[in-house]
Amino acid sequence: MFKAIVSADTLGAALDSVGVLVDECKIRLEEEGLTIRAVDPANVGMVDLELSANAFESYETDGGVIGVNLDRLEDIVAMADSGQLVHLELDEETRKLHISLDGLEYTLALIDPDSIRQEPDLPDLDLSSEVVIEGADINRSVTAADMVSDHIALGVDPDAEQFYVDAEGDTDDVHLELGREDLIDLTPGDARSLFSLDYLKDMNKAIPKDAEVTMELGEEFPIKMHFGFAEGDGHVTFMLAPRIQSD
Amino acid sequence: MFKAIVSADTLGAALDSVGVLVDECKIRLEEEGLTIRAVDPANVGMVDLELSANAFESYETDGGVIGVNLDRLEDIVAMADSGQLVHLELDEETRKLHISLDGLEYTLALIDPDSIRQEPDLPDLDLSSEVVIEGADINRSVTAADMVSDHIALGVDPDAEQFYVDAEGDTDDVHLELGREDLIDLTPGDARSLFSLDYLKDMNKAIPKDAEVTMELGEEFPIKMHFGFAEGDGHVTFMLAPRIQSD
Amino acid sequence: MFKAIVSADTLGAALDSVGVLVDECKIRLEEEGLTIRAVDPANVGMVDLELSANAFESYETDGGVIGVNLDRLEDIVAMADSGQLVHLELDEETRKLHISLDGLEYTLALIDPDSIRQEPDLPDLDLSSEVVIEGADINRSVTAADMVSDHIALGVDPDAEQFYVDAEGDTDDVHLELGREDLIDLTPGDARSLFSLDYLKDMNKAIPKDAEVTMELGEEFPIKMHFGFAEGDGHVTFMLAPRIQSD
Repeated sequence: MFKAIVSADTLGAALDSVGVLVDECKIRLEEEGLTIRAVDPANVGMVDLELSANAFESYETDGGVIGVNLDRLEDIVAMADSGQLVHLELDEETRKLHISLDGLEYTLALIDPDSIRQEPDLPDLDLSSEVVIEGADINRSVTAADMVSDHIALGVDPDAEQFYVDAEGDTDDVHLELGREDLIDLTPGDARSLFSLDYLKDMNKAIPKDAEVTMELGEEFPIKMHFGFAEGDGHVTFMLAPRIQSD
Repeated sequence: MFKAIVSADTLGAALDSVGVLVDECKIRLEEEGLTIRAVDPANVGMVDLELSANAFESYETDGGVIGVNLDRLEDIVAMADSGQLVHLELDEETRKLHISLDGLEYTLALIDPDSIRQEPDLPDLDLSSEVVIEGADINRSVTAADMVSDHIALGVDPDAEQFYVDAEGDTDDVHLELGREDLIDLTPGDARSLFSLDYLKDMNKAIPKDAEVTMELGEEFPIKMHFGFAEGDGHVTFMLAPRIQSD
Repeated sequence: MFKAIVSADTLGAALDSVGVLVDECKIRLEEEGLTIRAVDPANVGMVDLELSANAFESYETDGGVIGVNLDRLEDIVAMADSGQLVHLELDEETRKLHISLDGLEYTLALIDPDSIRQEPDLPDLDLSSEVVIEGADINRSVTAADMVSDHIALGVDPDAEQFYVDAEGDTDDVHLELGREDLIDLTPGDARSLFSLDYLKDMNKAIPKDAEVTMELGEEFPIKMHFGFAEGDGHVTFMLAPRIQSD
């Protein structure tokens, strides 16, 4: 049993953060809320999403897992006006999800969860640095790096107490340094890793410009990025595996 | 003789409602105003447009028929700023239409009206149901149906006193029910017909979101949709033939 | 040595006016400011740009010439918010230009100036007519002419004291006449020349709609168009060679 009412904005933000990595996913229906965990086909980017029952106008379930076509579900929710409520109800017999918004009823065929790629375990990493940064600064870094390269290095210089971004192209380079005064918070430690810009661009699409994003970074280690939405009742963690530094 | 001045907004709205179905059309110049009647090449969708002389700043004609390239004429009118006046004057000798807006003069070669597809007769149908609905609700129905199917069923359930929309895809379905409280008016009768979504999408483009649209519906019959513009001095009727129900 | 600070708006406007004609250019660094002169590969359109040291927040140089990839430089400057300052500094040793905006540092590899097409001499023509016109009227003329033809004739009728625009298509024509009251200023003389619309469209992109543009025109002669920007501290001259009239 699953029956819930939620604002289109909240549901849209939740789905979009997963949709930048995968087209289909399993949604775990739990008493405390929804969770989605997914990894892209190349095993490079992962997402862990939690949307607490508090983020919903109403939320009832006795548990279960459903498989959805994310593209389709995002399109439906995108039809709603901002602030409009979306009603969700699972039909156990037909295995269809009834979605209604302002009188319009959409019947979405679910996907067999067993046919969907297995959910990843998000490894518990001991990362040396933590940077709390505005979403707008991630956007700026990714946009600039994209002009010169397919890769981007993110790092922390503990002596200078700076977070930095490096992108090296064939002829041109991009560099950004943000000190304590430019960041929301910084727990410095030696850290530098190289990432595929394509993945970071996709993740960036789902990060609100005004979000406070907590980055955990290490030395040639994956990066974790966390941010909240829906007034703190929603939470996204992205994890991105590093590329091997070629120099 | 034809000489008229009209706001670019009014002329643009009139032309766009015909332009969604055909590229060329005949414009009938009558004492009381302009009329255009056209049918698409497949004989599925028809439009009947009336733009009363009252919709013009000034309007003089002694009658006649001109053939125009609608795409071209729409492009010219679209160059005007909102609220700007468009001057139209027919040169009988050269068979050209002089269009001037803010000092810019455009000479549009007319098309021989005999070379344009004959104007259709709009059949006088006795349709059982009448629904008065907001343009925005038509837009919503068409957008949602388009996610799942190429066809859309429109109908009235006289017992439930509801207008409804159905679209059935291979896996997903869309359904909308609007009762008396959601509609501007309803004269119920048994009605249900299936339509090609492509045509309805084109017609929808010409329907203002805030228009009151009167739909006349029957059982496996064409649909008629009427709406006014230019403060009631313009009037559009669309008619769309049904598809044969395959089930 | 070259070190300067300038608003992104001013630098962007300067670069865009050259970028509509060429992809690479030489920038001459002079005590009084920057100058760029370029001609398109077909030798049809030329641009002469001056950006006075007064247009900068700060400006220091001991002279020199640098070669730049304009597309790249325009993209970097476009990343800045309106009103943001751009810092430029030349590294003489590496021949790279350091560009920083709001903490983001971009290192742009320069191009060997000798590998860039030679700067043209802008001929000193004795043109019979001078028309001072709003940028918006040039935009209107070019947009309308583009509907009917690949060419546009610009001329002055000294008897009628009018500047005029003519475009003749296979079936349709466009004509615009602007008298003394529609122009900012007019010094009439016999003038009419035919131009390629593609070039004029490109130049039009760089002309602000609210600019006062001084056109100098002759009889089958090139046209010169001048306009200022950055509150008069920047100045652009476009010159366009005429097409031979085929009639």
